[in-house]
Amino acid sequence: MNPLLEKLGVRLPIIQAPMAGTSTPAMAAAASSAGALGSIGVGAVDAAAARAMIDQVRAATDRPFNVNLFCYPPATPDAAREAGWIARLAPEFGRLEAAPPTALCEIYKTFVTDEAMQAMLIEAAPAVVSFHFGLPSASVMAGLKQAGCVLLASATNLEEARAIERAGIDAVVAQGWEAGGHRGLFDQHGPDPRLGAFALTRLLVRELSFPVIAAGGIMDGAGIAAALELGAGAAQLGTAFVACPESSADEGYRAALFSDAAWNTTMTTAISGRPARCLANRFTAIGDGVAPSEIAGYPMAYDAGKALAAAAKARGDYGYGAQWAGQGAPLARSLPTAELITVLMDEFAAARA
Amino acid sequence: MNPLLEKLGVRLPIIQAPMAGTSTPAMAAAASSAGALGSIGVGAVDAAAARAMIDQVRAATDRPFNVNLFCYPPATPDAAREAGWIARLAPEFGRLEAAPPTALCEIYKTFVTDEAMQAMLIEAAPAVVSFHFGLPSASVMAGLKQAGCVLLASATNLEEARAIERAGIDAVVAQGWEAGGHRGLFDQHGPDPRLGAFALTRLLVRELSFPVIAAGGIMDGAGIAAALELGAGAAQLGTAFVACPESSADEGYRAALFSDAAWNTTMTTAISGRPARCLANRFTAIGDGVAPSEIAGYPMAYDAGKALAAAAKARGDYGYGAQWAGQGAPLARSLPTAELITVLMDEFAAARA
Repeated sequence: MNPLLEKLGVRLPIIQAPMAGTSTPAMAAAASSAGALGSIGVGAVDAAAARAMIDQVRAATDRPFNVNLFCYPPATPDAAREAGWIARLAPEFGRLEAAPPTALCEIYKTFVTDEAMQAMLIEAAPAVVSFHFGLPSASVMAGLKQAGCVLLASATNLEEARAIERAGIDAVVAQGWEAGGHRGLFDQHGPDPRLGAFALTRLLVRELSFPVIAAGGIMDGAGIAAALELGAGAAQLGTAFVACPESSADEGYRAALFSDAAWNTTMTTAISGRPARCLANRFTAIGDGVAPSEIAGYPMAYDAGKALAAAAKARGDYGYGAQWAGQGAPLARSLPTAELITVLMDEFAAARA
Repeated sequence: MNPLLEKLGVRLPIIQAPMAGTSTPAMAAAASSAGALGSIGVGAVDAAAARAMIDQVRAATDRPFNVNLFCYPPATPDAAREAGWIARLAPEFGRLEAAPPTALCEIYKTFVTDEAMQAMLIEAAPAVVSFHFGLPSASVMAGLKQAGCVLLASATNLEEARAIERAGIDAVVAQGWEAGGHRGLFDQHGPDPRLGAFALTRLLVRELSFPVIAAGGIMDGAGIAAALELGAGAAQLGTAFVACPESSADEGYRAALFSDAAWNTTMTTAISGRPARCLANRFTAIGDGVAPSEIAGYPMAYDAGKALAAAAKARGDYGYGAQWAGQGAPLARSLPTAELITVLMDEFAAARA
């Protein structure tokens, strides 16, 4: 039992990644009950829905679990840019015999300014709260700490990790270049050294004096063992859980994950407006070669992205989905969450022996 | 002692990477004498010079060592494209008060067609021969095997690794996205999934039935231990050796390696005509945003690159050098090669304990 696990109150060095839109309260509860740290992501829902999700996890487990928030800078809607992006996507909607949206909405609120979510979270006080894309205000973090929450935050480079350490966060999630889903860059327009999980984990462990959680491309017990050899206190796995029955991934996403597409994930900004790693599909192909400045900002682009995916899905075409996956995708399994965790720990023990 | 190390005839799970132009016969001999596999890269010299290098290593150690060859497709000089690239670099030469080259030469020969090098190598028969950028002909590989050479080759993805396995190569070097220097892509114009070392190593170990050597971002004993947990038979470290006294890195390269630039490596095609990871410097900045099709092909672009670096260096400006480095660069040390290997193994033992 290392200090990080003690702090988190869990037995196993495994964090089931939050994966807003894919993980579920059932998955988080199963992961936590199995001894790992289960997570839900509430970046895509409002305070009431988030509270309901928290209550669902609590109804299913008495173990600690993690609630993940998106802390990007307040969105900057720009009608001209959004219109340009709609125009760019219009032929795709046309091909699907669907009307493109007439305008794009700010479909999510950043936690940074969502006072209802802040108040709800401090009141609900889940055992662990994690931040992605940045940090909330010092007073919100203080409120959560006072409520007894252990805090985590993602970093993709040393600068972000140092900001996280300075803010008094309990541990940093080192999100490697391999990781599926949204890249946690604080400034999506800043330089990105694209550090791989191997290098990033080791660099952060060597440079920082608080616990590091390795993330990106970790899919099995040998990967967890390797992460711990690099000095991480735990490994965070997302893609490994996408195909679990508790996941809300649709059949197209699951089929793509078990196809050759798993060998070809790509970092795309086209689906949501922020860089995210996705199984290469028709939507990521649209984004190839498009300058990020042409794509609507986050989360307005995601409004278009969801409309396009829905239009396609209505015709049985899953090729436009936000099929987030990390580079380890070919090693995905479709076991139930609890069983997957047992297998992961068996593999971990075998790797260490 | 795992099967790979037995085959290589070495005691330690460390390969000092070839690094043509940076490693030296003295470094290779020191690494091999210390129990690792030392390497020289002869991709930038002709058969006679390569033979002299091999003889130098042999004069200094009786242990096995590795000779690395560049196996890219025969170069395709294109006067118009080269003229375009010279024109593009002309203002840089102007700033350095130097004349740009009037034409670019094919400064190296690929091993694939270099019959003198092939004959020399079969005759010299070093214990280990490794290939980068592809493979030579079946008959050359057969000749080397018959001469008793153990063969290695780099892969950046599964497809390349399978081609290497099919060719009967003894082990594959899984070159992760983090790795410094030239990316070993067989087809530099093909799609590149940019697999991080963590994901790539584990994927190849899981998918292939011959030994895997992990490379990319590995800088210390914990990294070596992690690579072995992922199932690799050994770890290949390049950047870790760049600052050793036996290295031919110039003072500018060493200074950059120990500066903040180490935190910001970048994949650039501008220096040589093939993608390679370099400490961000004035030269990599030139390449930012330039379409690969505008840059002269390899190795013609390298002719321009070397001329530009030389013109700058003549004025005491090291900012245009081919300062290859991997993402683990901030963990570089300037210990003598043999001492570094002792430290790496001490760290390895500590990580495993």
